[in-house]
Amino acid sequence: MSKPKGFEKPIGFRDYLPNAVSKLRKIENDVLNCMSQWGYSQIMTPTLEYYDTVGVASSTSDQKLYKLLNNRGQALVLRSEMTAPVARVVSSLLKAEPLPLRLSYHANVFRAIEEEAGREAEFYQTGVELVGDDSPEADAEVVALAIASLQAAGVQTFKIAMGHVGFLNGLFEEVAPGMQEVQEDLKSHLLDRDYVAFRDALGRLDLTESQKEEMDGLLRLRGGKEICGQALGLSRHPLAQASVEHLCKVWEVLEAYGVSRHVLIDLTMVGDFTYYTGMTFEGYAADLGFPVCSGGRYDNLLQQFGRSVPSTGFSLKTNRILDGVRGVENKQELPVLVQYDAQRRREGLEESARLRSEGHVVITKLVSNPAELTAADSGAETGGKRYKDIYTFVSFVKERS
Amino acid sequence: MSKPKGFEKPIGFRDYLPNAVSKLRKIENDVLNCMSQWGYSQIMTPTLEYYDTVGVASSTSDQKLYKLLNNRGQALVLRSEMTAPVARVVSSLLKAEPLPLRLSYHANVFRAIEEEAGREAEFYQTGVELVGDDSPEADAEVVALAIASLQAAGVQTFKIAMGHVGFLNGLFEEVAPGMQEVQEDLKSHLLDRDYVAFRDALGRLDLTESQKEEMDGLLRLRGGKEICGQALGLSRHPLAQASVEHLCKVWEVLEAYGVSRHVLIDLTMVGDFTYYTGMTFEGYAADLGFPVCSGGRYDNLLQQFGRSVPSTGFSLKTNRILDGVRGVENKQELPVLVQYDAQRRREGLEESARLRSEGHVVITKLVSNPAELTAADSGAETGGKRYKDIYTFVSFVKERS
Repeated sequence: MSKPKGFEKPIGFRDYLPNAVSKLRKIENDVLNCMSQWGYSQIMTPTLEYYDTVGVASSTSDQKLYKLLNNRGQALVLRSEMTAPVARVVSSLLKAEPLPLRLSYHANVFRAIEEEAGREAEFYQTGVELVGDDSPEADAEVVALAIASLQAAGVQTFKIAMGHVGFLNGLFEEVAPGMQEVQEDLKSHLLDRDYVAFRDALGRLDLTESQKEEMDGLLRLRGGKEICGQALGLSRHPLAQASVEHLCKVWEVLEAYGVSRHVLIDLTMVGDFTYYTGMTFEGYAADLGFPVCSGGRYDNLLQQFGRSVPSTGFSLKTNRILDGVRGVENKQELPVLVQYDAQRRREGLEESARLRSEGHVVITKLVSNPAELTAADSGAETGGKRYKDIYTFVSFVKERS
Repeated sequence: MSKPKGFEKPIGFRDYLPNAVSKLRKIENDVLNCMSQWGYSQIMTPTLEYYDTVGVASSTSDQKLYKLLNNRGQALVLRSEMTAPVARVVSSLLKAEPLPLRLSYHANVFRAIEEEAGREAEFYQTGVELVGDDSPEADAEVVALAIASLQAAGVQTFKIAMGHVGFLNGLFEEVAPGMQEVQEDLKSHLLDRDYVAFRDALGRLDLTESQKEEMDGLLRLRGGKEICGQALGLSRHPLAQASVEHLCKVWEVLEAYGVSRHVLIDLTMVGDFTYYTGMTFEGYAADLGFPVCSGGRYDNLLQQFGRSVPSTGFSLKTNRILDGVRGVENKQELPVLVQYDAQRRREGLEESARLRSEGHVVITKLVSNPAELTAADSGAETGGKRYKDIYTFVSFVKERS
C-alpha cells in the first residue's frame, strides 16, 4: 500500500470544477423545481446513519457500505441510497402527518466497492417518495414525474422500462415452488441481464415442455400495452396475475398522462434493491449504457421503522445525467473588471457595488502603475476574451497602447 | 452500548424538514449568488479525503476527525472543513490556472467530537478562497465579501472581529522567546477566551513590570482604527509591527468599501485553525453567542499540496444562520388540488399539466365516489387552508355539502 501523494484524492472520488458544478447545479435546481411543482417537499437527512437501522434497511450489500464507528462504539454507515433514510423520517419526525406524503431530496450517496471498477464511490441522486398510497395511480404518478424530471434535466431522448417484482415472484414460484434459492438465482441472472445463465439455471430444473416454453416466452415480454395480455396468458399464478393487472392499470394512467410513448413494459426487469415489492422501473437515455433513473414500489420497508405504509418512488442519477447528456448548458457570464489605484479606490469600489447591484459579475484589481493595467480586451477575435468590460479608475497617466 | 431503535438517527446528526430545507436552500442560493457576483466560481470536492493529506492539512484534532478505511486499507476522513480540500484542487486540477483564483463552495463538513457536547457533528458551510494574492487588498476583499454574504443571507445586525496571528506571534516571542509550548498555551487561552487562565500563565513567566503592563494592554486592544496606533506602541517586535501595519491597511480598504462600521479590530483574536498565518476574523450576529462566519489568511497551507501560494478566505456557518437568524423566510406556495375520477382522468391530468406550466404547485387525486371528494377549503378563516384552489373533474353527481 503506497502512501497517497499530497495532491491526490481517494480513488473513486471526484472533484467538480466550476463548469461542471454550474451544470450540475442547474440540473439539480430544475429537477427539484419540477418535483416541487408536483407537490413534493424537499427534506434533508444526515450523511451518516446507524448501520443497524438504515444501513440494514438500505438493502445494500455489506461490502458496498462505508462503515465506521462513532466515539460511543456504535457502527455507522455513509448512506448508500435515500429511500431508507426518508422512510426513517416518515416514521419519526413525520409520523403524525396525514397521508399521502410527497417528499423529495437531492443528496450524495456512497458505495464502497464501486471504486474498484473505476466507478464512482460517491454520487448524486435527486428523487421523490410518494408515501401512503398503494394504488396504480400512485405508481403512475412517480413514473410520469420521473419522465417530467428527465425532461427538466435536459434529457431529450429516453425510455422507461417498467416491470413488476410480483410477476417474477409468482412465475418463479410456479416453476420452482418453495425453492427460494433457485428463485433468487434466477432473479439475479435477470438483474445481470445474463440470459445464458438464466436459461442454464432453468435447464437444471425439472420443467415440463410447456413450462419451458413459458419461461422462454418471458424473455420476449417487452413492448407496449400488448404485453399485458401476453403476460396474463403466461402464468396462472395468482400473484403473477394480480401483478400484471396492476401494471396494466399503471399503463392506462400513463396513457392519460400522455407519456406512454416513453414507456416500455419489460417483465424481465428486476429492481436493483431487494426492498422493492411491486412495480419497478429504470430510465435509459439514448447513447448511454447505464440507467439515468430507477425506482419502484416498496410496501414493506417502512414497517422496519415502525410505520407500516405502502410507498413508491424513484431517483435520478444526477451526475450521470451531467456526464452523459449533451445540451445541458449553463453559460457563465464573463466578469466585468474594475481596476483602480489606491487614490481612486473608493470610486472603483463604489462603481463595483453599483455594477453588482445591476446583476453583473465584477472582479476588482488594485494597480499601482501603468504597467499593471489590464488593457482593453483584445482577445475577443480569438475567443480569448476574459472580461465583458473593463472600468479603470487611476490617477496616474495611462500609457497609450 | 444500547442498540439504536429503528427510527433513530445517530447522535449529533439532524434531519431537516421541508420548512427548514426551504430556508436553508434560500440562504445557500442567495449567498452563492452573491459570491458569484464577486467573481467567485463554485467547485465541489469529495466528502471523503485521504487522512494523510487533506486530513492532516485540515488542522483538525485527530479526535474530531471521522476516520475510516477504504477497501485498500487506506485511511480516509470525512472532510472537517473546506480550505484544505480546495487547496488540494488548486494544486492539482487547477495548477495551470493563472492567479489570483477566486473559488467558492457550499458543503457539509464533519466533526466527530461535537456530538458529545450536544452540538452538530455534520454542518453546512458556504465560503470562498482567494488564492494567489498576499496583499491587504485581498484580505479586505474577503472581509467585505463576508459582510455582503451575511447581508445576502438575511443577517441584519452583526459585527466582524478582525485580528492577526502574526501580531500575537511577535508579541509572545518577545515575552517568551523561543518557548513554543508557552506561546501555544497563551494562544489557546485566548482562543477559549479564558482571560483568567491567560493571566495565570503570564504570571508564571519572568516578566518585567512594563512587559506585564503590555500584556494587560493586549486584552484591551479592541475597537476601531485607533487600535492600530495603540498596538504599534505595544510591541516593538518586527513581526508584530508588520502585522499591525498590514491590518491597518486592510482597515483602510474596508473604509473604501464603506463597510468598516461592521468591523472591530480585536488583537486578542486567534483563528480556530492553526493553518492561519495572518489576518483572521469572525462574524457575530446580534443575539447569537457563536460566530456565524470565520476566516483568515493561510500562506503556508498550499505548499503542503505542492503549490506554494498565499491565500485568504472565509466560510459562513450556513445552518447556524438558519437556526439563529429571524427574517429568513421563504414562503411556500399552497398547492392547487386537482381531483378527478377514472372516467375524466385525462381531462384532470391535462389541466394539472397546464397549471404546472403556469408555475402552480399541483397535487392530483383520483376519487371514485362523492365521499372521497375534497370540499372547497373551508379552513381559510382558521388558518387551516391547505389548497390555493380545487379543480374537480368527475362524472358522478357531486353531493351538495
